[in-house]
Amino acid sequence: MATEFHPENVSLAQDGRAVRIIDQTLLPGRLRFIELSTPEECHDAIARLAVRGAPAIGVFAGFSLAVIAGNMLQGRRDGAFGEADLHALQDRADYLASSRPTAVNLSWALERMMGLARRCVGSRCGDVRAALLAEAHAIQQEDAAMCKSMAELGLGLIEDGWGLITHCNAGPLATSCYGTALGPILLGTERGMRFRVFADETRPLLQGARLTAYELDRAGVDVTLICDGMSSAVMRQGWVQACFVGADRVAANGDTANKIGTSNLAIVAKRYGVPFYVMCPSSTLDFSCKTGDDIPIELRRGEEIKQMFFSEPVAPEGVACYNPSFDVTDNDLITAIVTEKGICRPPFTESLAAVRDR
Amino acid sequence: MATEFHPENVSLAQDGRAVRIIDQTLLPGRLRFIELSTPEECHDAIARLAVRGAPAIGVFAGFSLAVIAGNMLQGRRDGAFGEADLHALQDRADYLASSRPTAVNLSWALERMMGLARRCVGSRCGDVRAALLAEAHAIQQEDAAMCKSMAELGLGLIEDGWGLITHCNAGPLATSCYGTALGPILLGTERGMRFRVFADETRPLLQGARLTAYELDRAGVDVTLICDGMSSAVMRQGWVQACFVGADRVAANGDTANKIGTSNLAIVAKRYGVPFYVMCPSSTLDFSCKTGDDIPIELRRGEEIKQMFFSEPVAPEGVACYNPSFDVTDNDLITAIVTEKGICRPPFTESLAAVRDR
Repeated sequence: MATEFHPENVSLAQDGRAVRIIDQTLLPGRLRFIELSTPEECHDAIARLAVRGAPAIGVFAGFSLAVIAGNMLQGRRDGAFGEADLHALQDRADYLASSRPTAVNLSWALERMMGLARRCVGSRCGDVRAALLAEAHAIQQEDAAMCKSMAELGLGLIEDGWGLITHCNAGPLATSCYGTALGPILLGTERGMRFRVFADETRPLLQGARLTAYELDRAGVDVTLICDGMSSAVMRQGWVQACFVGADRVAANGDTANKIGTSNLAIVAKRYGVPFYVMCPSSTLDFSCKTGDDIPIELRRGEEIKQMFFSEPVAPEGVACYNPSFDVTDNDLITAIVTEKGICRPPFTESLAAVRDR
Repeated sequence: MATEFHPENVSLAQDGRAVRIIDQTLLPGRLRFIELSTPEECHDAIARLAVRGAPAIGVFAGFSLAVIAGNMLQGRRDGAFGEADLHALQDRADYLASSRPTAVNLSWALERMMGLARRCVGSRCGDVRAALLAEAHAIQQEDAAMCKSMAELGLGLIEDGWGLITHCNAGPLATSCYGTALGPILLGTERGMRFRVFADETRPLLQGARLTAYELDRAGVDVTLICDGMSSAVMRQGWVQACFVGADRVAANGDTANKIGTSNLAIVAKRYGVPFYVMCPSSTLDFSCKTGDDIPIELRRGEEIKQMFFSEPVAPEGVACYNPSFDVTDNDLITAIVTEKGICRPPFTESLAAVRDR
C-alpha cells in the first residue's frame, strides 16, 4: 500500500515533547526525520517547506500547538489552565499561522485547536495538554479518512489504462494517507488498475520531480517526469485523459489557489478538452473568500528561481524575479472539485455551499 | 546598442581555419570563446547547444561548411574542385544536418552552401574555398539585415510602456544582430522606449534565465525572470500586452515549432486575450511541411531534466522522463508571424505563401 513507505509523515516524538516530521526538502536524496518543539522551529519548518502540502500543514499545526502548549504548561500538571495561558497560546498560534499565508488548512487547524483550548479554560493543565494532543490526533485521523473517501470518489472519475497528469505533490507526503490528487491513482493501483501518470516537475521547488515522481515510482506506478512547459506537447499527443491536482484554498465560487503552475495546466487542459479535477478536503474551502481575488498569495524570494538546487546561479545576479508560490485557477477551468463529502460540479457557488451544509 | 556586447557571436577564426563561437552552455557564469574546425567538433557544438538559436545555427552551419571545405582542400589551391570533392563535402553537410532535426535553418543554410558548391565543380579549389566563405558571410549579413527588418516591423506592433513576455532565447546570441523575438524590445529600447519584459526561464535548459535575462539586463531593459508555470499568474494581473517568441520551423499553415513550452505560453495568452507574435526570418518557413504534424521533433535525454545544472539529482534515478526539445503551437493561437518580408496574419496558408513568392 502506498502509505506504507512513510507511515510517520507527521507524528509525535516518542517523549511527546516534539513533533517529528520527514524533512521534505532533502527528498529524494535523503530520508531524514527531524524533531521540532519550539514555536520558532515549527514556524520555520512550515516556512522553509520541510513540511508541506495543505492537509499535512494542518496536521502539523495541530501537533505543533499541542506540543507547544505541553511545553508551556510543563510542571503545572495539576494547576488550572487560565485566561493568561489561553492568550499566550493564542499568540503562538497566530505566530504559526503567519508562516505561510495561502493554505487555509493551516489557520483552520489552528482555529480548531484554539477553539478547544478556549473551552478548556479552568481545567487542569494536564488534562488540557491531553485534550489538545487528542485533538491533533483526531485531525490526522480525520485527514486519513478524508483521503480515503476522496480517493474512492476520484477513482470513480477515471478508467483503467488512462493517462493522467498532476502538478506539484498532493500525495502521501502532503497528507496523512493516500494524498488528495494522487489518491485515485494509488487506490486504483492497489486494486490492480494501471495508469500512465505524467508528473510536472513543478518549478521552482521541484516538488513534482522530488516528491511525486518518488512516491509514484515507489508505489509501482508508471510515472513519467516532464517539465511544466511540456504539458501541451503531452496532451497534444492524446496521452492524457484527466488532470488531478490538490488545492491550498478554494473560494466560495470554486476559484482555486494551488501551487504556481496549476492555472497554466488547467488552461492547457481546457484547450485539449481534458477534464480538470481539484481534490481537497472540505477544510480547504474558504467561504470567507468570495472569489480567487480574495485569496492572499504568498510571494517568495527570487533565489528559489535563480540559485536554489543549482550548482551555480543560472541567471545574472541583479536580475529581478517574480516568485508567487501559488496561482488562482478560475472556476470555469475546473470540471469538478472532489471533497470527502462528495463531488462538486458547476455552478460551484451552489455545489460547494451544499457540501458545507451537509 | 544591444549587439555591441557580443559582436562576435559566430565568426571565422583569425587564421580562417576554424569557426569561433561563444560557448553558450557556460553563460551567464563564463564568457568563453571556442574554435571548431573538424566536422565532429562542429556537429557536437550544435548538438550540445554550445551554439543555438535557429538563425545562429544556420550561420554557424555556413561557416562550418566553408571551414571544413577549406581544410579538406588544403594544399590543392590550384587544383580543380571535382565531383569526388563535391560528394565528400555533401557527406559532411549531411552529417552536420543530422546534429539537430527540428530547426530548418540548419538544413536550409547547408543546402544553400552545397548549391554553391555544385555550381563550383570544375573551378579552382582556392576559388571554391573563397566563394564558400563569402557565401557564409553573406548568410550572416543577410541574417543581420533580416533581424533589423523584423525588429522594425515588430516594433510597429507594440507601444511604449507595454508589458511583454518571451520564452527561451531569441535574442542577439541566437542570431546575427538584435535577435528575432527580442528585436522589437532592443530596437525600441535604443529609441528610448521602456518595456517591462517577463522572461520564461525555459526548462529544462534554462535559456531564458541564462541568456535572455542576461541579454536584456545588459541592454538596460527592465526584465523580470519567471518560471514557465508563472505566465498565467502574470497575465491574470494584466501585466502583459503582447508575447514574442522565435521559431525553429514554421509549416505552410502557420503551425510553429519552437522551444518546448511555447505552445503552453500561446494557449495561456489566448485565454487572456494577449496577442501572440512569432518572429522568424523567411528561411524558417518550410512549405514542405503542410502542418505542424509534419515537423520532426527532437527528443533529448532525461538527464537534462533530472540532473543537468543541479548540485544533485532532483528525481529518483530510475524515473522515466519525456524530454521533447520543441513543441508545435497551432496556427489558431498565433496572432501574426513576422518575417523580414512582412507581417503575415491568418489565414496563414495564404499570407505565408505570399511572403514566399515576394
